[in-house]
Amino acid sequence: SIDGQRLWSTLMAMAEIGPTANGGNCRLALTPEDAAGRRLLLDWCEAIGCTWRVDQVGNLFIRREGRHSDLAPVATGSHLDTQPKGGRFDGILGVLGGLEVFRCLHDRGIVTERPLELVVWTNEEGSRFAPAMVASGTYAGEFSVDDTLSRRDADGVTLGEALESCGFAGDMPVGEPRLDGFFELHIEQGPVLEEAGESVGVVTGVQGMRWFDVTFSGQSAHAGPTPMRLRHDALAAAARLIDRLQVHALSDTSGATKVTCGCLDITAASRNVIPGEVHLTVDLRHVVEAELDALQSWFECEMAAAGEAFGVAVSQQRIWASPVVEFAPECIAAVEAATQALGVRYRRMMSGAGHDAVYVSRVAPTSMIFIPCRDGISHNEAEYATPEHCALGTQVLCDAMLARANR
Amino acid sequence: SIDGQRLWSTLMAMAEIGPTANGGNCRLALTPEDAAGRRLLLDWCEAIGCTWRVDQVGNLFIRREGRHSDLAPVATGSHLDTQPKGGRFDGILGVLGGLEVFRCLHDRGIVTERPLELVVWTNEEGSRFAPAMVASGTYAGEFSVDDTLSRRDADGVTLGEALESCGFAGDMPVGEPRLDGFFELHIEQGPVLEEAGESVGVVTGVQGMRWFDVTFSGQSAHAGPTPMRLRHDALAAAARLIDRLQVHALSDTSGATKVTCGCLDITAASRNVIPGEVHLTVDLRHVVEAELDALQSWFECEMAAAGEAFGVAVSQQRIWASPVVEFAPECIAAVEAATQALGVRYRRMMSGAGHDAVYVSRVAPTSMIFIPCRDGISHNEAEYATPEHCALGTQVLCDAMLARANR
Ligand SMILES: NC(=O)NCCC(=O)O
Ligand SMILES: NC(=O)NCCC(=O)O
Repeated sequence: SIDGQRLWSTLMAMAEIGPTANGGNCRLALTPEDAAGRRLLLDWCEAIGCTWRVDQVGNLFIRREGRHSDLAPVATGSHLDTQPKGGRFDGILGVLGGLEVFRCLHDRGIVTERPLELVVWTNEEGSRFAPAMVASGTYAGEFSVDDTLSRRDADGVTLGEALESCGFAGDMPVGEPRLDGFFELHIEQGPVLEEAGESVGVVTGVQGMRWFDVTFSGQSAHAGPTPMRLRHDALAAAARLIDRLQVHALSDTSGATKVTCGCLDITAASRNVIPGEVHLTVDLRHVVEAELDALQSWFECEMAAAGEAFGVAVSQQRIWASPVVEFAPECIAAVEAATQALGVRYRRMMSGAGHDAVYVSRVAPTSMIFIPCRDGISHNEAEYATPEHCALGTQVLCDAMLARANR
Repeated sequence: SIDGQRLWSTLMAMAEIGPTANGGNCRLALTPEDAAGRRLLLDWCEAIGCTWRVDQVGNLFIRREGRHSDLAPVATGSHLDTQPKGGRFDGILGVLGGLEVFRCLHDRGIVTERPLELVVWTNEEGSRFAPAMVASGTYAGEFSVDDTLSRRDADGVTLGEALESCGFAGDMPVGEPRLDGFFELHIEQGPVLEEAGESVGVVTGVQGMRWFDVTFSGQSAHAGPTPMRLRHDALAAAARLIDRLQVHALSDTSGATKVTCGCLDITAASRNVIPGEVHLTVDLRHVVEAELDALQSWFECEMAAAGEAFGVAVSQQRIWASPVVEFAPECIAAVEAATQALGVRYRRMMSGAGHDAVYVSRVAPTSMIFIPCRDGISHNEAEYATPEHCALGTQVLCDAMLARANR
C-alpha cells in the first residue's frame, strides 16, 4: 500500500514553490513558478528511473516502463498550475498522487504489464490563458496546436511564448502517446462528500460548462451634472445582468444551475465618471446539456434586457463550451471496485469542476477519483484536504491503475 | 472685448499635451503631462509680464499687478488636470479664459484698481488622488497641508512626492494670498443649457456630494462545484447594491438624486473563481443637504441588505463630503449683470459638478459662469464646447472681474 506520509511530504514541498500570504499558492501556468514545480517533479521521477517527454503544447509525459513496452500505457495525472490565489491540492494532488503510485511500485520492484504514464497537463486552470484544460483539449483534438499556442494572457503574451521562456516547449507531436486508460485523482472542490461523511467520490462524469466574454458599451460622462435618465451607464447594465443571473440560479431548487461572474473590468475607471465600457466574464454550468442550452438562452435574453434598461449596447462572445461528459463504464467500475475493496463510504457523483479528464475521456477510457476538501472550499488559499484522505484517494488510484494495467 | 480666436488657439495648443486616441486628453494630476501644461501656461503669462508663486500643495498663483498692490486681488482660475480619458475643456477653459482676460487687458494697457490673480488649483479631478478639489480645499482650510501631501494614488505615490518629482512643490504658505473675490468659468458638463438653447449659466451654487469606499468581503471558491446557496459572492452583493442604487435614483422624478459607481475591483479575479473580495466606489449627490442625508441613510441600509442577501460582510468608509454650496450674492449679481449686458439667453442654475469654487467660496466671495457643452458630455474624450461659447463665457468673466476689481 502507498506511503501516505511520503505523499504528504511531497505535497508540502511543492507548496513551497510560489507560496502566497495566506498559506496558498500562486503558480500561474507557464510562469517561472510553474516551471520550478515541474522541474522538482522531474527530479523526483528521474530518481526512480522514469523517462519523460514534452509535447508541443507543454504537456509532460513521465513514463514508468511495463513488461510490454509496445502496449498503450495506463495513465494518471492532472496539473501543477494554480489560480492567482489558489490552494495546495487542486491539480497537485493528482500529479503527486501519481508520483506516489510510481514510488510505491518502485519500492516493491513491481513491473506492470502495460507501461504507466504520469501526465502534467499545461494550463488547466484557464486563469492565465482561457479556456481551462486547453492543453488536454489540444491533446484530445478539441483545439488545434496553432490556436492553442497563439492564445494570449492579459499582458498579450502567447502560450507559445510562455512555453519557450519557461523551458517547456517540447517537440513530441500533440496526441502522442495514445493511452489505454486515464484515471485522475482530485479534491472534490465542493462540499458534497464532506457533508455526507463520505471519503471517496467515484466520478461518473462532469457537468457542462460555457464561458462568455460580455462587453457593455455605454457612454462615459460626468457623475455630477449628468441626469440619471440620460445616462448610458455600462456598469449599471452589468450589475443588472449579474443580479438577474444570481436570482435565476438561486431560484433553481434542484441546485443544478450554476452561474458565476468572475472578472469585471471598467475601462478608464474613475470615481466621478459614469462607466462607459465594462467587460464581464460569465461562467454557466449544468449537469444536463439541454438545461445548459436553456440557461444560455435565458442569459442572452437577460443580457439584452439589461442593456436596454440602461441604454447600453451589449454583445457577447462564447469563448468556450465543454459539453456534459459521461466517463467510461469500465473505468468507473475499476474505481468503484478499488474503493469498495477498501471498505470506505463513497458515492458515485458528477464533477462540478472541469478537469483534464474531460478532454482525455474523448480519446481514452477515463474516470476520476474525488476526495473531500475542507468546507468544500477550493480556488482559495484556504483549500485543505487531510493527509488521510489524500492517502486514501491515492490508494484507490493505485489499485484502479494496477487492475487496468495488468488486466 | 476679448479675442475668441486667440483663446481657441491656446485651448488647442494645451490639448496637444497628453492627447488620447479619440481626441481627448490625459493629464492626470502632477504627472509629467500636467507639469508640461503648467509650464506652457507660465511661458504665456511671463510673456505679458505676470509674476507667479506656488504654494505648498502646488496651487499656482499668477499675478497681474493692479494700481493698489496692497489690496486683496480679484481672482479667477480652475484646473489643468484631467480624467484618465478626459476632455479638452473641463478646467482648462477656466484657466485659459483667465489667461485671455489678462492678455486682453495687457493689449490695451489697462491697469485695474485691485491686482488680478489667475489660479491653477492642484488635483481638482480627484481621479489620481481622492478627493476632488483637494488643493483648493486645503487653501480654504478644509484639509490640513500634511493630510493633503500624504494622500496616495493607486500606486502608493503620495501627493507630496508627486509634487516634488514634477517640479511644482512650492513654499508659499497655503491660504495665501487672501482673495477679494473669485470667479470660475467652466463648461456646464451637463445638458441643461444646450437643451434650453441658452448660452450662459449664472451659477448660484453647487450640489452636495459624498464619496464612499465600500468593501465586500465574501469567500472565494470554485465556480463549478460550489452550490449557489452556499456561496459568499462579493460581486453578487456589489451588483445588487449598484442595481438598487440605480433603481432608487431613477425613481426620483425630480431628477435631483444622483448616484454613480465609478470603480469596481475584484481581488485576484479569475473567470472560474467566485469573487471573494470587491472594492466599490460610490458617489452620491443632491442639491438639498437633508435629501443627501436621507440618500446616504438609504444607501447604508441597501448596502447592508445586499451583503445579507449574499452572505457577504460589507463595510463603508465615507472619504469625502462636500456640502451644498450657495455662492455670494454680490458675485452672482456681477456675473448676471455682465451676462445681461451682452444680451444673451441665460439661466441661474446650480452646478452638478464640484469645482474649486466650492472651497474658495468659504474664504472669498465667489461665483461661477457656465457655458454649454455638446450633448452635455464631459469626463469623456468627446467633450466639446464651441469657440463662440468659449469666447462668450470669457467675455462675461472679463466683465465681471473688471467690475469687481475696479468697484
Ligand atoms: N479543477 C479546476 O479547478 N478546473 C478548472 C476548470 C473549471 O473551471 O472547472
Ligand atoms: N468639474 C469636475 O469635473 N470636478 C470634479 C469633481 C466632481 O466630481 O464633481
